[in-house]
Amino acid sequence: MTTPQNPSGEDDLITRYFKPLATDPGALGLVDDAAILSGTGDDIVVTTDAIVEGVHYLAGDPPDTIARKALRVNLSDLAAKGATPAGFVLTLALRSKADAWLRPFADALGEDARAFACPLLGGDTVSTPGPQMISITAFGRVARGRMVGRTGAKPGDVVMVTGTIGDAALGLDLLQDGAAAAALVSDPAAKQALAARYRVPQPRNALALALRELATAAMDVSDGLAGDLSKLCAASGVSASVDVAKVPLSAEAAGLLARNVVGIEALLAGGDDYEVLCTVPPASTEALIAAGRAAGVAVTAIGSIVAGDGRVQFLDAQGRALVLKRLSYSHF
Amino acid sequence: MTTPQNPSGEDDLITRYFKPLATDPGALGLVDDAAILSGTGDDIVVTTDAIVEGVHYLAGDPPDTIARKALRVNLSDLAAKGATPAGFVLTLALRSKADAWLRPFADALGEDARAFACPLLGGDTVSTPGPQMISITAFGRVARGRMVGRTGAKPGDVVMVTGTIGDAALGLDLLQDGAAAAALVSDPAAKQALAARYRVPQPRNALALALRELATAAMDVSDGLAGDLSKLCAASGVSASVDVAKVPLSAEAAGLLARNVVGIEALLAGGDDYEVLCTVPPASTEALIAAGRAAGVAVTAIGSIVAGDGRVQFLDAQGRALVLKRLSYSHF
Repeated sequence: MTTPQNPSGEDDLITRYFKPLATDPGALGLVDDAAILSGTGDDIVVTTDAIVEGVHYLAGDPPDTIARKALRVNLSDLAAKGATPAGFVLTLALRSKADAWLRPFADALGEDARAFACPLLGGDTVSTPGPQMISITAFGRVARGRMVGRTGAKPGDVVMVTGTIGDAALGLDLLQDGAAAAALVSDPAAKQALAARYRVPQPRNALALALRELATAAMDVSDGLAGDLSKLCAASGVSASVDVAKVPLSAEAAGLLARNVVGIEALLAGGDDYEVLCTVPPASTEALIAAGRAAGVAVTAIGSIVAGDGRVQFLDAQGRALVLKRLSYSHF
Repeated sequence: MTTPQNPSGEDDLITRYFKPLATDPGALGLVDDAAILSGTGDDIVVTTDAIVEGVHYLAGDPPDTIARKALRVNLSDLAAKGATPAGFVLTLALRSKADAWLRPFADALGEDARAFACPLLGGDTVSTPGPQMISITAFGRVARGRMVGRTGAKPGDVVMVTGTIGDAALGLDLLQDGAAAAALVSDPAAKQALAARYRVPQPRNALALALRELATAAMDVSDGLAGDLSKLCAASGVSASVDVAKVPLSAEAAGLLARNVVGIEALLAGGDDYEVLCTVPPASTEALIAAGRAAGVAVTAIGSIVAGDGRVQFLDAQGRALVLKRLSYSHF
């Protein structure tokens, strides 16, 4: 907020860019120290994810895509937990207050907040001499005790995944002039599609309700399908077997794989997919696929849960186990 | 969490340093994407504050004090809102994973989390090539509709403040070898006391319940008493008159003021006090002072709310209005 006597830099910035986004009554118009999530008796699901310039997004990425990514990586967690978005708080570490960056950033953030019904509730804006960073903590609601966890997968459950896998990793590779860039030099549409998958995730919040009803366990795929499925299995005390041929690929990814520009490992272990990975009893798979169809999201069965100690086997078309050198992407 | 197959850098770090802090059932042992604040019907008060190396703390500050400051600046907001701490999530942007920094950081964070009954619920650890940053979002509970806001101050209310004002600004000055350092060169105890006030705030959570019962408006003093009171007045649509002689000062601050090492403006407009500023009907001041006494926290009446447009007058012992060149500290 501003005061007539002494508008500080931060107050001015909040008034100009972020107050218009704070339409929820719980935001208190951003004039208080705190926000309110009103007590409805529902559980509040809390998730927090930060993105750092040069680490999680590229310094040259457009500010509107950075804003969307910052919010959507959190929305993706809420989706996988079966939670209905309730709002978010934003910590913005800025090197400068340039309008040319902040205006498209705030506008895009506001658009996504409206589109996903996840209003800005509060935040903190700090200056930094280093890389910019956006940290968001997002909140969702579920009926008491109904959050979809990681620990409920059971032998016999079907392993399912939304959308397509590996596109974001290819998008990052081509934005960094990797092998995919050379291979797609004459296909700007494919380049654009893959870059968009890296820059702007498509969180599957439209499936949250169905996941809450149908899934025994779920998480979003952020660090690579292989590693994330291993984590889910370890948390549930089970193992999994995945039929690699069933892993859904986009036309672009399938094309690059067929041309040997990229190996399957880079797709299975690449990061930033922000799809939902879940386990579902066999009797419920059709219902989840139907819910996906209604929401315009493909849901694909890729394998099954078996008894075991957290290991995940990836089987090729001949039933041979692939040996993956790495399972996930780590920023460390 | 770790997996037997592929412990990533972040997973290993979480297991080693932060999992032992995640004792609350809602943290789910930090093995899920999200945490749960269980639905009790209470309102959840949400506050978020970040501290950046070289901006909000000094690069040479000990890691244990950095951890305490990061959590306590948020606890201070909860205290001023009358909320009972319920937990927090942590975003840690690290340049390195050195145990010599992380071990005392995590240990001190755990100690404070226990001392203030505010458990770690989740978080995100990211790498940064720039200055380190700690962003915390903290949660508190209040009965529905009972959060203490900024908008309820009424003409006739008494303006009250906890603890002492200006010490942290002096602490920062002397840590940066300013005038206070030269003046206190032969008084290491005073130097240590003031530096501690800058490095480790003392949030007044012990007064939260009394504030909820007695205060018409409250906020914590983080950017300077003068500017923060202006903000409270503007939000409430009132003005205030403060008797500068009544503003509580520590012996160290009073001594430096008497020796003209520091002016009153630097104390009134200095940042990082993390005391509670509140307005209380005259009939309730004694009760708040008594609650403070029971908690070991001084609560001092420093002025009164009058009708007006957000302006705050600071009157000296002769009743003359001081003209303050600045009202608060801005990191921008």
